[in-house]
Amino acid sequence: MKFDVEIWFGDLDAFGHVNNVVYARFLETARVKFFMEKASKIEASFVLRRLEMDFLAPMFLDDVAEVEIWVGEIGTTSWEFLYSIKNKKTGEEVIKARTIQVWVDLESNQKRPIPDELRQILQSEKRG
Amino acid sequence: MKFDVEIWFGDLDAFGHVNNVVYARFLETARVKFFMEKASKIEASFVLRRLEMDFLAPMFLDDVAEVEIWVGEIGTTSWEFLYSIKNKKTGEEVIKARTIQVWVDLESNQKRPIPDELRQILQSEKRG
Amino acid sequence: MKFDVEIWFGDLDAFGHVNNVVYARFLETARVKFFMEKASKIEASFVLRRLEMDFLAPMFLDDVAEVEIWVGEIGTTSWEFLYSIKNKKTGEEVIKARTIQVWVDLESNQKRPIPDELRQILQSEKRG
Amino acid sequence: MKFDVEIWFGDLDAFGHVNNVVYARFLETARVKFFMEKASKIEASFVLRRLEMDFLAPMFLDDVAEVEIWVGEIGTTSWEFLYSIKNKKTGEEVIKARTIQVWVDLESNQKRPIPDELRQILQSEKRG
Repeated sequence: MKFDVEIWFGDLDAFGHVNNVVYARFLETARVKFFMEKASKIEASFVLRRLEMDFLAPMFLDDVAEVEIWVGEIGTTSWEFLYSIKNKKTGEEVIKARTIQVWVDLESNQKRPIPDELRQILQSEKRG
Repeated sequence: MKFDVEIWFGDLDAFGHVNNVVYARFLETARVKFFMEKASKIEASFVLRRLEMDFLAPMFLDDVAEVEIWVGEIGTTSWEFLYSIKNKKTGEEVIKARTIQVWVDLESNQKRPIPDELRQILQSEKRG
Repeated sequence: MKFDVEIWFGDLDAFGHVNNVVYARFLETARVKFFMEKASKIEASFVLRRLEMDFLAPMFLDDVAEVEIWVGEIGTTSWEFLYSIKNKKTGEEVIKARTIQVWVDLESNQKRPIPDELRQILQSEKRG
Repeated sequence: MKFDVEIWFGDLDAFGHVNNVVYARFLETARVKFFMEKASKIEASFVLRRLEMDFLAPMFLDDVAEVEIWVGEIGTTSWEFLYSIKNKKTGEEVIKARTIQVWVDLESNQKRPIPDELRQILQSEKRG
C-alpha cells in the first residue's frame, strides 16, 4: 500500500530538514491507513512494540514523500510491518523502517493470538 | 545524563497514551542536551543514521518521564547513544532506545572522523 | 498560576525560532494544569471556542518560557483565560494570549451553565 | 486558494478530536502554500504578529479538511490573511481564522513597507 505526503514547513527542523520525528508520524499514518483500507471490519486492537528507522537521505520543503507499507514476518501474537519512504522528486529512498505490533486485549493489555480474519489479510499483504 | 519531563495533555493520542512519536522527541532532546551540557564547545555536526525504540509500557497524563542517555559503541565516524525512559511514579522502564549518529561535514554531507575532543567526551560517557 | 518550560530543539522551525504552533501547545498545557491544580475535583467538561495570540518577540533554543495563566471575564456558560509568556532570560514578554472556553455536556455537546463550584474557583483566579 | 488535508490519527488528542494546535499548523501551511503558489519569486520575509481562531465544530479521524486562505486588509507594512476550514464530509465550517503578518527585514527584524510586487499579488487575492 502506498500514499503520498507533501512536506510542509512545519515538518522541518532548525536545519531545514524534515525532522526525524515526522517520519515516525508518517509510519503511524501508514499503519492506520493499512487498517482502514485493508481491515476496516476488524477493530484494531494492537500496541506498537518496536520501531526501527534508518535515515538514508534528508528531505526538504516542497518535496513529496511516497510512503509504502507492507507485511513482513507474522507470528502467533505479533507481526512486522515494513516500510520504505521515497522522495518522489529524486526517486531516492530516504527511510527504511520496521515496526513490530502485538495483538492485545485492550482492557487487560494481555497478548492475544492474531485473529484468523486479520491473519489472512496480513498473509495476503506479506512480501519478501 | 538524566532529566525529567512532565507528560502533557498534548503528548497523548486518541488512546490516552503518550504517543510513540513523542518518545522520539524526548530522545532528540536528550541528544541535544548531551551536546549542550557535555560538549558545548564543539559545534555539533552530525546526522541521525538509525533509531530503534522498544515500547515496554504506556505512560499517561501527569506521569513524569525520567530520560537517561549514555554512550555505547564508538567507531571511527559514528557512535551509539543508548537511552532508557522510566516512569518516575512507578519506577517502571517504559522505553529502551538506541540511535546511531554519524559525524559529517554539514556542507558536503560527507562522513568525517569523530574529532578527538568529542571522542574523549564520548569515551568518558560510555557505559556497558 | 505560573510554570516554566524549557525550549527544546524540536520547538524550533526552519527559521530557528520557536514555531507559532508550539505556543498554542504551551497555552493548552496551562489550561490543563489550571484544572489539575485548582479544580482537580471537577471533571473538566469544556471546549475551546476561541484562541487569540499576539507574537511580540521570538524565542530560541535553550531559552526558558515562563507561562502564566489567569481568569478574565466569566459569563453564564463561558469564561476567558488570559495568558502571558515571558522569556526568563531577557524578562521580555513574547506572547500575550486569550482563549474562550464553553462549559458543555460532553455527550450532547450542548452549552451548560458553569457549575457553582467551578465558578467560585474561576472567581478567585480572576484578575484585571 | 484552497487545498485539502486528510485528518490523521496523529492529529487527534485524547478526546478523539482534532487538537486545536493542529489547526494552527494547517493555517501555517496555507500561508506557506500561498507564497509558494502566488509569490514564488518573492523571498518571504515576514513574521506572524497575531493569530485568531474560532473553533466552530470538531473534526475526527478520516475526515477531510478543506483549508481556504485569502487576503483581507492590506496596510503599509502588514496585511491580514483570512481563513476558513470546512469539513468536506459534512460541508460544515469548523474553523474561521485571521492572522496578521508584518513585512520585516529578517536581519534587523525591523518593519519594512510591503514591496510593490507583493502588494499587487495581495491586492489580487483580496476579498470581502
